[in-house]
Order: sequence, then C-alpha cells, then structure tokens
Amino acid sequence: MIGDGMGPEYTTGYRYYKDDPETKHMEPTAFDPCLAGMQSVYSHDPYHEGGEEEERENITDSAAAGTALSSGIKTYNGAIAKDLDKEDTKTVLEAAKEKGMSTGLVVTAQVNHATPAAYGAHNESRQNYDAIADDYFDDQIDGEHKIDVLLGGGTDYFIRDDRDLTKEFQQDGYDYVTTTEEMADSDGGQILGLFAPGGLDKAIDRPEEQPSLAAMTQTAIEKLKSNEEGFFLMVEGSQIDWAGHDNDVVAAMSEIEDFEGAFEKALAFAEKDGRTLVVTTADHSTGGFSLGEGGPYQWDPDVIRAASHTPDYMAGQIVEEGADVKRTLTDAIDFELTEEEIASVQEAVNKGNEEESFTAVDNAIEAIFNKRSGTGWTTDGHTGGDVPVYAYGPASERFSGFMDNTDNAEIIFELLHDSEDEEGARLANTATSYPLGMLMGAIVVGAGAILFMRRKQVKA
Amino acid sequence: MIGDGMGPEYTTGYRYYKDDPETKHMEPTAFDPCLAGMQSVYSHDPYHEGGEEEERENITDSAAAGTALSSGIKTYNGAIAKDLDKEDTKTVLEAAKEKGMSTGLVVTAQVNHATPAAYGAHNESRQNYDAIADDYFDDQIDGEHKIDVLLGGGTDYFIRDDRDLTKEFQQDGYDYVTTTEEMADSDGGQILGLFAPGGLDKAIDRPEEQPSLAAMTQTAIEKLKSNEEGFFLMVEGSQIDWAGHDNDVVAAMSEIEDFEGAFEKALAFAEKDGRTLVVTTADHSTGGFSLGEGGPYQWDPDVIRAASHTPDYMAGQIVEEGADVKRTLTDAIDFELTEEEIASVQEAVNKGNEEESFTAVDNAIEAIFNKRSGTGWTTDGHTGGDVPVYAYGPASERFSGFMDNTDNAEIIFELLHDSEDEEGARLANTATSYPLGMLMGAIVVGAGAILFMRRKQVKA
Repeated sequence: MIGDGMGPEYTTGYRYYKDDPETKHMEPTAFDPCLAGMQSVYSHDPYHEGGEEEERENITDSAAAGTALSSGIKTYNGAIAKDLDKEDTKTVLEAAKEKGMSTGLVVTAQVNHATPAAYGAHNESRQNYDAIADDYFDDQIDGEHKIDVLLGGGTDYFIRDDRDLTKEFQQDGYDYVTTTEEMADSDGGQILGLFAPGGLDKAIDRPEEQPSLAAMTQTAIEKLKSNEEGFFLMVEGSQIDWAGHDNDVVAAMSEIEDFEGAFEKALAFAEKDGRTLVVTTADHSTGGFSLGEGGPYQWDPDVIRAASHTPDYMAGQIVEEGADVKRTLTDAIDFELTEEEIASVQEAVNKGNEEESFTAVDNAIEAIFNKRSGTGWTTDGHTGGDVPVYAYGPASERFSGFMDNTDNAEIIFELLHDSEDEEGARLANTATSYPLGMLMGAIVVGAGAILFMRRKQVKA
Repeated sequence: MIGDGMGPEYTTGYRYYKDDPETKHMEPTAFDPCLAGMQSVYSHDPYHEGGEEEERENITDSAAAGTALSSGIKTYNGAIAKDLDKEDTKTVLEAAKEKGMSTGLVVTAQVNHATPAAYGAHNESRQNYDAIADDYFDDQIDGEHKIDVLLGGGTDYFIRDDRDLTKEFQQDGYDYVTTTEEMADSDGGQILGLFAPGGLDKAIDRPEEQPSLAAMTQTAIEKLKSNEEGFFLMVEGSQIDWAGHDNDVVAAMSEIEDFEGAFEKALAFAEKDGRTLVVTTADHSTGGFSLGEGGPYQWDPDVIRAASHTPDYMAGQIVEEGADVKRTLTDAIDFELTEEEIASVQEAVNKGNEEESFTAVDNAIEAIFNKRSGTGWTTDGHTGGDVPVYAYGPASERFSGFMDNTDNAEIIFELLHDSEDEEGARLANTATSYPLGMLMGAIVVGAGAILFMRRKQVKA
C-alpha cells in the first residue's frame, strides 16, 4: 500500500488529528504498530550518465518512485516502468502474474496515474495517460490480461473517441462498474471500476456513488483471494499527495483517513489469513508540510476537524455555483470565522477569470486552516526526506530498519522467487537470501502501496 | 546520543550532503545501518489539567523532550526533570549512579543547557542556568557527585561572582580543563571540561582549542569505561537544533557531521566492547527544514559543501570585525557569487544597530545557501513530527518499531533494573519484561542522546 506523498510529518499529523482529547496520551494510528523502518527515495539524475540530464532532479516524482517500488531500479522522473535507457523494466505485478497469481490496482486517482501505472504499464512519460490505459488492456502475459482488478477513477481515459476500453474489457469478461452499488453487486472474478472522469473526489467531499478506498480494497481482496496461487494487490492513497501539492491540510488529513481505512481492511484480511504480507509505505513526501509554523510550538488539529469539506469544494461552490461566501464557509466550517477571514475569501472571488478566481478562493480558505492550525509548507512540489515503512505478516521482518525504495522491490521479487527466471543479477543485489521453505508460493498484494505477500494455499 | 533537532529531513539531507558523486547510488550515513524505528515527541499541554495551561503547547521544546527521554514522563515545555506538578522526576542518569555506575554528559552547547540538564539537574525552568550548574555540583547521590564527566561549554555559568564551580569541582578531585590539549592530558577519573563561555563554536568554525564532539565522546568513554559496574553517558549534538532555529543549512550539516563523528566513536567502542548499548535519536525536529523549496525537485548539497564557514561566522567578520563583504564571502564560499547576492549582503550591513545588522547580514547569507540549495524552512521554532531512533548492541531490538519518547526512558530504566527500587508503577507501564539474566548489571551511556548500555564486567 502506498500513501502517495505520506511522509513522516503527515503520519505524525494524522496521529494528532485522530487523538482522543479525553485521554492524556496520544493514541497510535492503525499504521504505528506496524512501523518497520524507513526508506530513502531519491531519484536518478546525479547518479547516471544518461537520462534527462538537463533536469538533474534528485527529488523523486511519483513515476520514478513508483518504478523504484515496482521494479527495483532508479530511473528518471516521469518514467513509467522504464529504465534510464527507456527500456521496459519488469514489475513485481508482472512477476506475480507470471507465477499465476491474481493481481490488482486500487487507487483514488485515475487508475492510469503514475503510481499504479508504474506497476501495470510501461511508458517513457507519465503524461501519456491514454497509452497507459491502453497498456492495461493490450499488455498481456501468457495470453491473459495483466491486471484482474482495476478500481479508481479515469473514464476520460478509458472511454475515448478512438477507443472504448470499458467495452473491450467487458468483451473479455470483466465486470465494468461505475458506482459503489454496482461494485457491491459485481460477482465476476475480474473487474474494471471507474468512479469518476479523473480522480475520485476527496474522501471528505465524496458522494455515496464513489466508494471509499476501504470499500475498493475490500472488493479487490474478495475477488483476488480465491486464486490458489495467491495474489498481488497495490493500493494507493493517491490524493494525500494532491493535498500536499495544494498545501491543503484539510484534504491531507481526509485522504490519510481514507487510506487508513483501506490499511485496516488489508490488515484485517492478513491477520485472519495468516499467509499474507502487507507492506505499506510512501513514495515520497510532498509540500514541505510541517506541524508548527512561524514560531509557536502548537499545532491544532481541532481547526482541521472543524471542516466538513475541503477548501477546493468550498471554492467550487463559491466560484462555480455562485454560492454566498459567508454562508458557504459557515456551513462547512465549525468554528467562528473572523470578519477578516471572511473578507479575505470574498476579496479573492474577483481575482481574474474563473480559474484564477477558483485558485485565489481556494488559497484564501486554505490559508485560514493553515494559519489557525499552525501548518507550514515550503513548496507546491515534492521534498526529499526518507519515508516510513510499515510491514505486517510473513517476512515482514525483511522490511525492518533502513532501506532504499529499490530494496523494497528487490525483497518482493525475492519473495516471489522471481530470480529463478532471470539472469540472476537481481538476486545478486539483495541482502542475505530468505529461507526458501517459508516463502515458497508467496503471494504479493501491493496496495498503493499496500503490498500483500500471501503464501500459496495448500490444495485440499 | 541525542541529535538535538535532528528530524528525518536532517538525516536524509546529511546523506545527500555526504554522498560520493563518483558512485551511482547514495551512500548510507553512519546512522543508517542502526535505524531501529521512530518515536513520537509531543509535549504535555492538551493531556493534563495543570501546567502552563495558557500555553497549550503540544510541540515539544528540548526541556520537555529531554525530561521525557531522561525520566519517562510527559511534562510542560521548559521543565528540567520536573513533572506537571513541578516535583522532581528521577532520571536514568540518577538511576545509573545509584547502581554504582559512572556517568557523563557531553555536549556542544553549554553543559547546563536544556537537554543535558534534563539528565543531571532539576529545575522548574530551563532558563535558570546558574541553578542548573549548581545542581551538577550540589545534587549528590550516596555522598558522591552525580556526574563524573562533564564536557561542553559554559564557563559563564560556572565561574560567577557568587560562586566558582570550577574551583569547587577541582577541590573535590575533578580535573578541570578548558582546551583540547588539556583534555588530552587529563588523567583523572572525573573531569569538568568547559571550552567556551556558552556553547562551543559550530564545528565548521571551531578553533583547535575547542574539541570536536568525537574527541569529547572518546575522552568520556576512556574515563568511564573502567568502572566495573558500567557507565551511562549522554552525548548531545546540541547545535543541529540551533542551526535549525537560525534556518542555516550550512551549520545544520556541519553539526550533524560533528555528531556523526561522535556516533562513530561510540559505535566503535560498543562493537569492540560487545556489552554496550548505544541508543541514538533526536528530541524533536526544528525549523520545518525541507529538501526542496518553492517547486523544483532538486536539492543541491554542492552549494553547502562549498562553504568553509557558517553564515554566522561570516556575519561576525563583516559586522563585528568590519571585514570587506565581497572578500569575506569569496574567501568562505567556493562558488561564483552573483552581483545580486553580494549586493544583498552589502545592503544588510547598514540595517540598524550592530545586533540588527548582524542578523540582517546573517539572514542575507543564509538566503543565498537556502535558495541555491533548494532548502525550505517554515519556522524559527520546533516542529512536531516523529524522529528516527537508532540502536546498536545488547537489547537494541527493544527500540525497534514505533515508540513514544517516554518509552525510550522506560526501556532504559527497565534495563537498569531500576524498578526494583521503585513502587513498581514504572514497570507496569512498560511492555513485556526483558530476560533478567541478559541485562543484569547493564550500563547505560546516553550521549546527546547516545545512550550506551554496557553490561557489568565479570570480575577476574
């Protein structure tokens, strides 16, 4: 499972946010008991002779980080399972499918966004969304589609003038669903679920027709678990990162909560199953998010808990629907706004065209939450710090301590015994070999990144 | 060992800083192989009924964090080994001394600064520097001084009109040293070394007369290791935090390097000794430091490596010594400065009185490094995120995974078998009990925070 952008300040902030003020200590989150270690996430440029040399980017994007996590190699920002020479890399999802496992990708972005794409497609650029969606259908292994369960957003990329991939998947036996209810009614083994044109709405704004990440994860597990060879599932809390890019602390907490719900579903299955490995991490951190800003030693989660919608949602109401500023804010925010705060949003309404006005209003509302909560930001891009790694289940101890994001993939390849089919170079890079008996027939589930490793079922 | 302020973005940044550009991967730091987990560091206010209620600070300062690490309790910011009722707490250093172990505090701040004070003194306020220094001499256990080795800065607080503690310590048999050379010549078992009026100079600016943290740590170990009951040593890289408060990335890297040197000395001893536990962590993070700022996915350590002095040092030369701006900058910075950069510093010189001018020049020079390297900051105070925990040696596995900073102390109390002398409340709070045989006679060394646990020597 991958919390996109979910660096250590986010998981700490979420602990503050979820804290029960009735107790005199801070309760651990669902993630905390599984903390195994941390991983470095730097991307490629200073370390090779080729690639997009002029960029020299050593802070990773989600494509390069996704490729590191899916394929065990460092590559250039933007690469979707491509190495520095733009050759396809083999992904852990592909290795699992080769072993006869079932596979799935479950996200809250469009399903062809960078992180899931790095597991299920190959492209020189993450921007080639249509080609990535095509890959999900066209790239086959042993005459079968690579990905059995695809849940997230993205109808804009699957239903196009030139091609309707939803029809093509259905012709090949996939259920195609577009609402929470349809997803619940699906009884096929393979499913394509697209619940929005692009990404899903933020959890705190999400209508009932769009499922929670927990519900999608539960659906995926139900469909994948019957394969006796096991399964690999990658689940991504995609929009923690989007919240970070937007410097929106309300959305950040909402999206981690959605991701935590999925994590709990995965963990509950793994606990019951006993043969499933769940690996959870982030691909990088975003925004330079800090608990504390401008001096005071205070970070106030009450301010964030007072919001019933994201600033983006409120800005949409005000700018796109023409809703009254004060009423919109007081409806969605459960604390007394000052006249100055309301005026700051009102003034933003007339700043330029609709898009500019939306951005100005959104920023003005975000500023209220950031200032009152004591939240700091340094960038609308990514930052370079190490991120936490959580692991539960068989072989979880392999993820303890410090590692690089490429090691994360290498361990999963090793657990899949993928090296048997390769030239052996991959295994040579890994640490001490794992007892074969224990891992024979392991199943990997990677979920945004929840990575499940489930051992093969013994046939009755 | 405690890297004050050394949150995860700092340890990651230091890995970038120390990277060998000749290789195509990023080399691990000395800390990385010892990564055990992370700890939460929040301070008290939302969780109690008393204390400095009007403050409601839930981001810790170094006093509250030091008290959590030394005594296993959450308290209010500013408290030096005092609980919320302002009662003295028992510290792990005191517990070690009660067991007949030798003890030491080694820092680069004044030795009576908040973090070391939280191990060796008790005061309602960290600001009472004189009283804390007095405690170091006056507070005794079984008729003996509590702290056998005290190394750092602070003559201003030890040699005063009302009292000369350096004389008092010498009368009681301590060596008193004030230079690196004198420290090397000392052959007594107990030592007070004060190498500056307040804190030492930053490592990159430090004159030869002031020792490195590594040299002080090595000296401490040599003096403490002969006690057959073992020893406890706390070593603090004090000024990583000060660099963070100043938003000075040059000083931050310099100070982590100094701390890493001390860590390597501790680890080398522990590896050879085989009976010593080294626990290393941070008390909190500082400044909202981020690798990446304002958009670009780049953080350039070459810019930082180009400095041969801190901006503070350069500002001192310019403002206090009247040195030429351009020559000072070009002497201390090994990259081509733009005219605009030089002008920005020149303009700062005449901003107000000497103190204001110093601050303006310092900030202008820091801005050059921050902008060129892509370093972001959000505050001149602390931030709330979890910090890494590193452990090596016997019982190091106890520090694995997620913990609170109070757990850190509880484990050390347990390893010291301190609970035998207490009402048992402390042990009741800890996790599963540790096999007694393995830990009998354990010695703890905490160093800023390097915490060594060394088992009792078997008499020949």
